[in-house]
Amino acid sequence: MRIRVIIALAAIFAIGACKEAPKKATFAPASVEITEENGILKTAVPERPAGQKSALGMTAEPIENIRIGFIGVGMRGSDAVYRFTYLPGVEIKAVCDLLQENVDWCNATLLKRGFPEADTYVGEDSWKKVCERDDIDLIYICTDWLNHVPMSLYAMEQGKHVAVEVPAAASLKDIWDLINTSERTRKHCMMLENCVYDFFEMSALTLAQSGALGEIIHAEGAYIHNLDPFWDEYWNNWRMNFNEVTRGDVYPTHGIGPICQALNIHRGDRMTTLVSMDTDPFNGPKHVKAKTGRDCPEFKNGDETSTIIRTEKGKTMLIEHDVMTPRPYDRMYQLVGTDGYAGKYPIEIVCLREEGAENVNYDNLGGEKIIKGAELDALLEQHRNPVNTPELEALAKTIGGHGGMDFIMDYRLVYCLHNGLPLDMDVYDLAEWCCLVELSRISIENGNRPVEVPDFTRGEWDKVAGYSYAFAE
Amino acid sequence: MRIRVIIALAAIFAIGACKEAPKKATFAPASVEITEENGILKTAVPERPAGQKSALGMTAEPIENIRIGFIGVGMRGSDAVYRFTYLPGVEIKAVCDLLQENVDWCNATLLKRGFPEADTYVGEDSWKKVCERDDIDLIYICTDWLNHVPMSLYAMEQGKHVAVEVPAAASLKDIWDLINTSERTRKHCMMLENCVYDFFEMSALTLAQSGALGEIIHAEGAYIHNLDPFWDEYWNNWRMNFNEVTRGDVYPTHGIGPICQALNIHRGDRMTTLVSMDTDPFNGPKHVKAKTGRDCPEFKNGDETSTIIRTEKGKTMLIEHDVMTPRPYDRMYQLVGTDGYAGKYPIEIVCLREEGAENVNYDNLGGEKIIKGAELDALLEQHRNPVNTPELEALAKTIGGHGGMDFIMDYRLVYCLHNGLPLDMDVYDLAEWCCLVELSRISIENGNRPVEVPDFTRGEWDKVAGYSYAFAE
Repeated sequence: MRIRVIIALAAIFAIGACKEAPKKATFAPASVEITEENGILKTAVPERPAGQKSALGMTAEPIENIRIGFIGVGMRGSDAVYRFTYLPGVEIKAVCDLLQENVDWCNATLLKRGFPEADTYVGEDSWKKVCERDDIDLIYICTDWLNHVPMSLYAMEQGKHVAVEVPAAASLKDIWDLINTSERTRKHCMMLENCVYDFFEMSALTLAQSGALGEIIHAEGAYIHNLDPFWDEYWNNWRMNFNEVTRGDVYPTHGIGPICQALNIHRGDRMTTLVSMDTDPFNGPKHVKAKTGRDCPEFKNGDETSTIIRTEKGKTMLIEHDVMTPRPYDRMYQLVGTDGYAGKYPIEIVCLREEGAENVNYDNLGGEKIIKGAELDALLEQHRNPVNTPELEALAKTIGGHGGMDFIMDYRLVYCLHNGLPLDMDVYDLAEWCCLVELSRISIENGNRPVEVPDFTRGEWDKVAGYSYAFAE
Repeated sequence: MRIRVIIALAAIFAIGACKEAPKKATFAPASVEITEENGILKTAVPERPAGQKSALGMTAEPIENIRIGFIGVGMRGSDAVYRFTYLPGVEIKAVCDLLQENVDWCNATLLKRGFPEADTYVGEDSWKKVCERDDIDLIYICTDWLNHVPMSLYAMEQGKHVAVEVPAAASLKDIWDLINTSERTRKHCMMLENCVYDFFEMSALTLAQSGALGEIIHAEGAYIHNLDPFWDEYWNNWRMNFNEVTRGDVYPTHGIGPICQALNIHRGDRMTTLVSMDTDPFNGPKHVKAKTGRDCPEFKNGDETSTIIRTEKGKTMLIEHDVMTPRPYDRMYQLVGTDGYAGKYPIEIVCLREEGAENVNYDNLGGEKIIKGAELDALLEQHRNPVNTPELEALAKTIGGHGGMDFIMDYRLVYCLHNGLPLDMDVYDLAEWCCLVELSRISIENGNRPVEVPDFTRGEWDKVAGYSYAFAE
């Protein structure tokens, strides 16, 4: 696996959130107005502008040959360029970065793979020129977090579909801007959340959808990843800087994405309330000191953040974030059902209900049918995700990208655009998965109070019956 | 392992909590007054009565021969009677139960093990007579949850030390009564929390205390146990009945006990704030229907409850409760330190920080030193808990009791009483571990609001420097 990280386009650090002054002085500043009702904090939901309609199930005209411009090809972006050379029906028109060497690497890769070179764009504002071209269909954004929103908005305004790295946005204001812009321009705005395409998650989703686990009533997800070996690789230290000035779960999407699909969020259920709590920053300031020699008494983000979310249908989700401690890599990924269970870390296990107590022993105190190893492999093979054909899986594993999931993500994006289908992840998924960044901060900075999760669909969360993938006839 | 459950003494079901009318109608009823300050709910802390002093580090005169009365010897209690026949310096004077067959079983066991029979007490109020005897030092209570408090209080008032099963109490009023009574009578009131003596937990605690994991900043614990095979074994269905009428984490002590020791709760730190959230009851009412044919639309307790707690020193704890779904048995038990990690389920793992990225690969994305299997066994052997000598461990594993931990718990209780030492778990541990029952309910029933955790030591939480065991000179 290639362990590389996103390169930043922003030379100067600035926070996307907190641009607006808070309307209510009694609460910690937020990007939108906060009010309180019965002890629950609520953030303002802007009315849908007149003449604009929902993006639920939104499709665009089929695109036979998808012309793509990549912005940010330092690390994740260059991987993506390489992967796209394995997808038929696409054309890489432009690559853009702050550094010449990164766009050069892409063109060398294209040549090596037998494709023509892309036009190159280098420097601070050059990404706008990519968005302004009239021969591009899709802008694929892999910059640092802070540039995701302005680039996505500008690309949609210029009539381009957008695929943007995680987290697509870090504030509620930005999220609403992305939603409104996608709804108005009718351009897709998909977040590149790859973990929903990891193999266990895909099979477990299909298993859950088969009813074998009963009704999923609780689910867990996390981003627990000791970034010690990686901190030095972020351009201008942007990721640690973000943690230095921002409290909350700043990187929730890998944890929440897969479980939101399993819980049919905005396809029959919706998140309603969230509470969040963090530890003090113990390791964060030590890192800053070690790297810069600077004392950092105002370091904001706690080393570990825990968030619990309740849904309209009475389910719960638990989400953790910890990139500061030497804990084993863990996205948690647990589905707890009324009749079964699937969990991924540290070992993959599925449990099914079994009547009677025959199996009860000291290693299995609940007497469930515990399935792991080869037996689990066979079960998951029976519940192969329809997206993940054996041929695609084999190809994905050859090409790679976090073990193959990145390739499947790209494949599905391209497939749906080719066929004029709704994408697997819409702008409301983006909103729901990203809103934790600011909502967790609001909870934490206001004494761990409960915070209402807005209905980003503005009333349409129960119009679709369950999560599904679109396929061409 | 013997899979048996506690027998109840109460023929008629009644709730210990909620006896008093709420003082503030704006909040859901609680056993003590609730107020609000800055969005945080606070429960009343009664002033320590004049002339009464703290029980912190409390000792009693050494007892050479400990004379014991057991109340409730159906399941857990009968196991305890058997275990006590392996402990020198004790005398089993009385056994008490609702059923003759249970006390008979104890006496048969005593005879088989070469000891004289105990006096037997059978019937509804006979436990009082046991407490009133003047030749008993310790009352050991293994009844259903609802009788724990009245029996413990009465026993202390009669001048007896108390050891009482988990959870010792389910309401704040009852908890304060136990504290005040122990402080005033100078009698020990120890909760029989066995999981702090399980082998991994004991070694991990010692490992943490050695500093190898850095500072412990976050910890997790749970009671996740599918009780499907056990529901029918509770006398008069008391456990399901309790869940039917009580919302919240009704059984938190196995999860929170071991991690409170690792976080030095009331030995330098204290819990300050708690938020809790549950799912709807999905499986609970189905069980009632299956067992009784009765529809149960008002079933209270959610199938899964999650609670997050913050401490004075900026650490966090995460606690889960789920006895309703077929999920693998899991007490979670994770210690997250600034320089290392220990986790128990589903496989035991310790991580230590390792500089550089040499170890980074797809199976170890953080590059930590991951220790498991034989290497972990060796590490834990190096950090053998001082309580758990090889001889004691071998004996405990022979005698059993949840794999041996119950015997070690009894051994330590007897050892400390013999030597006039403070017990490993004091009445404030009992209070802190049990308070989650009502505090989680208060949070949940008031819109998942944050709730202040009272300082049960009333100002002495930082007087002791770290958790430790007492040993005779």
